[in-house]
Amino acid sequence: MPQPPLSPLAPAHKPKLASVAGVRLATAATGMKYKNRADVLLLAFPESATIAGVTTQSATASAPVDWCRPIIANGTARAILINAGNANAFTGIAGKEAVAKCAAAVAAAMDCPADQVLLASTGVIGEVLPHAAITRHVAALTRALDEADSDSTAAWWRGADAIRTTDTFAKATSRQTHIGNTPITITGMAKGSGMIAPNMATTLAFITTDATLPSRLLQSLLPPLVDASFNSISVDSDTSTSDMLILAATATANHPPISQAGDPALSDFKNNLADLLCDLARQVVRDGEGARKFITIHISGAETDLAARRIGLAVANSPLVKTAIAGEDANWGRIVMAVGKAGEAVARDRLTIAIGGIVITEDGTRRPDYAAANIESALAKHLAGDTIDIAIDIGLGTGAARIWTCDLTEGYLKINAAYRS
Amino acid sequence: MPQPPLSPLAPAHKPKLASVAGVRLATAATGMKYKNRADVLLLAFPESATIAGVTTQSATASAPVDWCRPIIANGTARAILINAGNANAFTGIAGKEAVAKCAAAVAAAMDCPADQVLLASTGVIGEVLPHAAITRHVAALTRALDEADSDSTAAWWRGADAIRTTDTFAKATSRQTHIGNTPITITGMAKGSGMIAPNMATTLAFITTDATLPSRLLQSLLPPLVDASFNSISVDSDTSTSDMLILAATATANHPPISQAGDPALSDFKNNLADLLCDLARQVVRDGEGARKFITIHISGAETDLAARRIGLAVANSPLVKTAIAGEDANWGRIVMAVGKAGEAVARDRLTIAIGGIVITEDGTRRPDYAAANIESALAKHLAGDTIDIAIDIGLGTGAARIWTCDLTEGYLKINAAYRS
Repeated sequence: MPQPPLSPLAPAHKPKLASVAGVRLATAATGMKYKNRADVLLLAFPESATIAGVTTQSATASAPVDWCRPIIANGTARAILINAGNANAFTGIAGKEAVAKCAAAVAAAMDCPADQVLLASTGVIGEVLPHAAITRHVAALTRALDEADSDSTAAWWRGADAIRTTDTFAKATSRQTHIGNTPITITGMAKGSGMIAPNMATTLAFITTDATLPSRLLQSLLPPLVDASFNSISVDSDTSTSDMLILAATATANHPPISQAGDPALSDFKNNLADLLCDLARQVVRDGEGARKFITIHISGAETDLAARRIGLAVANSPLVKTAIAGEDANWGRIVMAVGKAGEAVARDRLTIAIGGIVITEDGTRRPDYAAANIESALAKHLAGDTIDIAIDIGLGTGAARIWTCDLTEGYLKINAAYRS
Repeated sequence: MPQPPLSPLAPAHKPKLASVAGVRLATAATGMKYKNRADVLLLAFPESATIAGVTTQSATASAPVDWCRPIIANGTARAILINAGNANAFTGIAGKEAVAKCAAAVAAAMDCPADQVLLASTGVIGEVLPHAAITRHVAALTRALDEADSDSTAAWWRGADAIRTTDTFAKATSRQTHIGNTPITITGMAKGSGMIAPNMATTLAFITTDATLPSRLLQSLLPPLVDASFNSISVDSDTSTSDMLILAATATANHPPISQAGDPALSDFKNNLADLLCDLARQVVRDGEGARKFITIHISGAETDLAARRIGLAVANSPLVKTAIAGEDANWGRIVMAVGKAGEAVARDRLTIAIGGIVITEDGTRRPDYAAANIESALAKHLAGDTIDIAIDIGLGTGAARIWTCDLTEGYLKINAAYRS
């Protein structure tokens, strides 16, 4: 299986990462599916750590998702074991057993209860996870946690690399913030490239911070932030069986206790967490399978924010819109079509569509000077770039959303018709 | 704009058509978009004709759809004027005027009220219909209705050809049935190739019969039959602004009066109408842009028939399922994913998936003899063909649906990234 070339939308520079006090990482190469690369990551937290998380709304959720849900509800964890290449989804009893074996191995090596071990798997669906191929590396993984650089920036990059499947680049980023006067770090990683249309959850993402916050508070922070980040992206409209986002706080920072999400001392932290989630979500879209254009869709004037998000996703998921943008064709009529099919209220004759800041429509049709003002050639110039902006006002209310997506190219078809990913 | 080559899924033989007493057809070439081909069709009915119809649920419905809705509600029409190449959708006041001009021209030439003239347009969205290019042909069109063969099979094929856009073949078919002892003919045509995910309506389809039936009865027949035919197909998940299906009964047949849809004398007619609608819907899928595989998805065991249809459409619209089938890869895990994302209840651990009649799953995973029985190579053999069958039992109830779709290939991308269709 040849590795696809680096996405042309990959960030020009790797972001600077900061390590998070209390978080250690170790990787191993099982050879289970990928050759000559690490494919397992162990993330370890101190006993003080609290966690929160969201998981896929898929009705065919994977065995690791089933395993993690009660642990997330419980609010504490000592470790997350992640593997790439096999999703352990639709694997029945054998998949459940594989999950239990992996958790037991980590629990024994780290001397903690098995229900303190989160598991995440990504890769092909329907093949039972060969757990022995993973558990035989657990002792070495936990030993590696004690090595000098297991809490370093380099360990974070090795970890983000290990959880890739069809991803062409590793995705991680950091933010520096503060709670009261105490400096706080947030560092997270994500993976994802295809099967990206998160639904109330996300592709795999792991966020850590040294903040000292109760899990109940972390859990109340997540949903609106995930809605505005991972739940607002789509590569191909397909929702994974394995989507999961975990936020772990190691409680190594000494700041005044915070018990309410609304505490003003938390506002800079929340802004930075929101910003980091959006950054990671955009990185996933920038690595969309076959993507050559990064597209931002701003929806305003919808009845509600949810209606705006649904309309934005209908545009983002329309193969006709995506192929028109791939072809650099200013066929904005397909945007009208996609808005119309979304199942939400639309004031057709007040609909305003702009591409690259150029307003196209007026009074339910294209603007009267469309030809005279040479609008189409201005649009073509914008569409020739690799960063496309679409703004749509629905003409009804104040509901708004911002969606990130990518174009649909032959690269996507080549990746998905040729490989068992 | 080169015409794409004939779909490899095109029917081997053109079906035999029967003309319908009372229906006359005439075509003209406006040169508006296509060169050297007819692009306008006039269908004419006697004063006795009754009609029924369904239109798109799009919130950005076209001007012709707006025009037709009250006429359909009224239940009678003398003519349908159809043009290809311009959808007259999202065209504001000017589009409304274009519609009125076209209807007035036909009404004047046929000596009937304008509200007896249905209009349908298909093609690019957002460009005002140049109505003069059409109305200047109306006199010739109505004269052509009086020519010898305007009620012939050949006239039907010319008509079906004239309403094509990216269609690679003309779509029409006939059924012979009876009401009481009176022989009855049903003949219909459709167009469609991309932007095919009809929602409570259909792409353009025009069905005629010589039966003598009140419009109220025709209108009550249509919705369930359309749900099981045009509303059960998808090429690309995109719903047109212009979808419309019209059923016209010329009342030229002398059968005993029928006033109730439940009248047993109507049962053969209903069966044949249902069969004809499914035939036309399948022809649309067989001309799906870039399609190389015709896929039937049978869903059973869902909570309701509607849930079954939604699950089937989630599978049919999944780019990952469509590309796997294009690549002849038995990656059935993607079917599990698509079932899971549909938003309907699923008994994951009782889910049964079969491809080409070969059962793949058991107890929430692949069957235990999957490797030993060489299931994957049996699946590969089926997938190498051009007619793919997928059967999915949800494991819950008695809800069922049958969906027709096609694979997603580079041909679709070439057509839609390169042409303004």
